[in-house]
Amino acid sequence: MKEKRLVIALGGNAILSKDPSAKAQQSAVNETAKYLTDFIKQGYQLIVSHGNGPQVGNLLLQQAAAASEKNPAMPLDTCVAMTEGSIGYWLQNALQNQLKKQDIKNDVLSVVTQVIVDEQDPAFQNPTKPIGPFLTEEEAKSEMKSADVTFIEDAGRGFRKVVPSPRPQDIEEASAIKKMVEENIVTICAGGGGVSVVKTAQGLQGVEAVIDKDFASEKLAELVDADLFIILTGVDYVYVNFNQPNQKELHQVSTSELKQYVQENQFAPGSMLPKIEAAIEFVEQRPQARAVITSLKNLNQLLNGNSGTIIYKG
Amino acid sequence: MKEKRLVIALGGNAILSKDPSAKAQQSAVNETAKYLTDFIKQGYQLIVSHGNGPQVGNLLLQQAAAASEKNPAMPLDTCVAMTEGSIGYWLQNALQNQLKKQDIKNDVLSVVTQVIVDEQDPAFQNPTKPIGPFLTEEEAKSEMKSADVTFIEDAGRGFRKVVPSPRPQDIEEASAIKKMVEENIVTICAGGGGVSVVKTAQGLQGVEAVIDKDFASEKLAELVDADLFIILTGVDYVYVNFNQPNQKELHQVSTSELKQYVQENQFAPGSMLPKIEAAIEFVEQRPQARAVITSLKNLNQLLNGNSGTIIYKG
Repeated sequence: MKEKRLVIALGGNAILSKDPSAKAQQSAVNETAKYLTDFIKQGYQLIVSHGNGPQVGNLLLQQAAAASEKNPAMPLDTCVAMTEGSIGYWLQNALQNQLKKQDIKNDVLSVVTQVIVDEQDPAFQNPTKPIGPFLTEEEAKSEMKSADVTFIEDAGRGFRKVVPSPRPQDIEEASAIKKMVEENIVTICAGGGGVSVVKTAQGLQGVEAVIDKDFASEKLAELVDADLFIILTGVDYVYVNFNQPNQKELHQVSTSELKQYVQENQFAPGSMLPKIEAAIEFVEQRPQARAVITSLKNLNQLLNGNSGTIIYKG
Repeated sequence: MKEKRLVIALGGNAILSKDPSAKAQQSAVNETAKYLTDFIKQGYQLIVSHGNGPQVGNLLLQQAAAASEKNPAMPLDTCVAMTEGSIGYWLQNALQNQLKKQDIKNDVLSVVTQVIVDEQDPAFQNPTKPIGPFLTEEEAKSEMKSADVTFIEDAGRGFRKVVPSPRPQDIEEASAIKKMVEENIVTICAGGGGVSVVKTAQGLQGVEAVIDKDFASEKLAELVDADLFIILTGVDYVYVNFNQPNQKELHQVSTSELKQYVQENQFAPGSMLPKIEAAIEFVEQRPQARAVITSLKNLNQLLNGNSGTIIYKG
């Protein structure tokens, strides 16, 4: 088989299900690594991206709990980079151990990834992504007075800061990542959607924003010339008329058919919808390539046949 | 000039002087990047390592402050990986911005690095490196009862956990890092001495230990076949008879002369001594290569002449 290039965007439950301890997360990651290794064994050049929602959330709470002059809370860009370190370490270690067990020689590396966003992105005028600790209304109002931040009331649980979720424009490390992939290094990157940076006169500079992991992974898959882009989620297939009597699994599906379903509001915003949009974007940019939306557990079936929702340009 | 391969181990003040805020640390790193860029401009293949003492210390305090079932404190190996992410991001960003300013095309990447230590290392029987929060004697005794940990009284300021500081045996990512360097990617790695791991039947596994940054950097310099290994510290030169009337700067110095000074206890343990030992080890492993101990500010002089303490095998 000609070597194929594959980007897999891991879903949250590939790393964390219920128990947030390092031990439990590493144990989940070890299971995930077995599925990923099957692709390497089949000759795929593998690039792995992952989310960091619960991990960066917990880190922000820890930072806030101890904040003092001697130990100031780190800003969001630095915290995202920290989770690229920690989750990257878990994935790298698990993949290396699994590859060695199966006597496969590829190197594995996790790299810090900066994703460039546009300062003019309308998301900066309309921050929507809640992060960090819950505050009282008084605390939130006081914070909003002293800095240019927005807090919103979050489902009766208190007030939370919201940050923008702009679209990824480019990935600073894409060319280096491509070189690594060409050296057959299994590369873990764009963790948590990447560290958000904007272009300034002084160069790239971190901003307080969160990039959707699936959009960042799509941009990555484009930039490294992937042949296949797999977005993992909790279900084996994308459904239309989900949970209704006429519910239908999508198998092979064209971008035009998918766009029709999007117009019908078939997919939940913030959940399945961004995955659908990322998949469409990818195959429109790379018409010979395929995008797949499926579950971690279904990867075996996908590898051995055509299971999962396979999206093609058409 | 033939491309030369250079490992620089940054000292603490290349990143953090007084102000521990992210802004101040990034500003220090931006200055540091200017010095490093000069070597890239001269055609060196640059590999950068760095410490993480204050950063991982603060992170451990933050983790402890918020520890709960929902938000458990991460273990030391994961915290070291987090600082490889955060400091790696700062260095990577600063170097990329500086290179672009000077129209130099090299890619820059920070990678998570695991350093392998021997479970039989005597350091595991004699933990010496204090980490994390200060406890009262009662708290320390209670912790020691419930887990296999050691606390010691730290200079009248309370009780602190001590962890082993074993010698590095190998670097898991060395071959991948070498490939990156051969692709002219400026590589930031082995941050904080690397994530400590031991070999087990299940593969590499993180342990609660801290590896000396200079020893880890030496091992790295060996494994990537460096021609030059620079250890940065607070002074331009290594001195003998330091702060005495007969104080003497060392310029070109042989390993045998240095070993004599080590026997005379000329160098402070935990400070200059490990740097001296790392420098000796490196040139003994690579007799044609050179090790240098000097300050960040003196790097210009070193590049333009022979300033700093230059160590050769002899």
